[in-house]
Amino acid sequence: MGGKILFVTGNSHKLDEANRILSPYGISLEMAVCEKLEIQADTLEEVASFAARTAAWRIGSPVLVEDSGLFIDALGGFPGPYSSYAFKTIGCRGILRLMDGFDDRSASFRCAVAYCAAGAEPVLFSGASGGSIATTARGARGFGFDPIFLGKGSRLTYAELDEESKCMASHRGEAFRRFAEWLLGA
Amino acid sequence: MGGKILFVTGNSHKLDEANRILSPYGISLEMAVCEKLEIQADTLEEVASFAARTAAWRIGSPVLVEDSGLFIDALGGFPGPYSSYAFKTIGCRGILRLMDGFDDRSASFRCAVAYCAAGAEPVLFSGASGGSIATTARGARGFGFDPIFLGKGSRLTYAELDEESKCMASHRGEAFRRFAEWLLGA
Repeated sequence: MGGKILFVTGNSHKLDEANRILSPYGISLEMAVCEKLEIQADTLEEVASFAARTAAWRIGSPVLVEDSGLFIDALGGFPGPYSSYAFKTIGCRGILRLMDGFDDRSASFRCAVAYCAAGAEPVLFSGASGGSIATTARGARGFGFDPIFLGKGSRLTYAELDEESKCMASHRGEAFRRFAEWLLGA
Repeated sequence: MGGKILFVTGNSHKLDEANRILSPYGISLEMAVCEKLEIQADTLEEVASFAARTAAWRIGSPVLVEDSGLFIDALGGFPGPYSSYAFKTIGCRGILRLMDGFDDRSASFRCAVAYCAAGAEPVLFSGASGGSIATTARGARGFGFDPIFLGKGSRLTYAELDEESKCMASHRGEAFRRFAEWLLGA
């Protein structure tokens, strides 16, 4: 491969993380100059799929879209597909407050990656990492709700992991690796 | 007038409330058999406008779309355009928990109504009602976050008001009355 693929995102952290995951496959992404049209939907797959289809149609070339979210069991999946808005408004502190008094702190980070060529149907790749919500926010790496997420069996939050460990463990790593294997096998 | 207008909503409470507000104007709405395509956006106006445009295009006749939300000052506007999802997941109880320890409980219910004819630009009407978040949920009328919203100067939550008082005071009443006056004057 080696060619560049357009990644529809406005988030440079996501671009860096995706490129770190994909570099062993010889795949490199560059930011698409195109709005990511996000719908309100219950699943990340619907959001990514719709955004990929509209971006591919507008740009006229193959694009990649990623959508991810934190799903907390005791909160009925909240903040889920709206994690980015929840992070901007109530933040980690708001989530910790919502978890007060819940024994069940289980949660998962999930990710959907959609690859779409103009006029074609999007192809979807999913990833998930199970874990739980920490009792306090810790760590300065990563972004979003990383400081309050503990991977399964880990005592470190995602914001305390080094980049390599996070990429190996994370929902985003899993989804992008599935995409890379599909692309190289395709 | 007296003719029926298609209202794109899956919420029968909203249909009833809108018809109660509009009946003095001789306007009556009926539910459109059409998906409401909601985008993720920071304002209700963008959400309503996009949904009205796509529904009018699909149905081929004029449609009305309403989007509303609860905006809490101390929470950076949360849950805002995502009030429906926040209600389904964390509910009134979650909002009360988030407000723990905040002195500033000011909030507003806001509403945007978009009217769109096929191929035309949507026309927007907004309404807002200022107030605050109650310390406990009270009342059984209305829907959504009504039980925790106190209108300005009122000791009753929106869920404790009778339908007539709520329609007069509410953000939804204001937006729909503006629409009616425009339609009858148009």
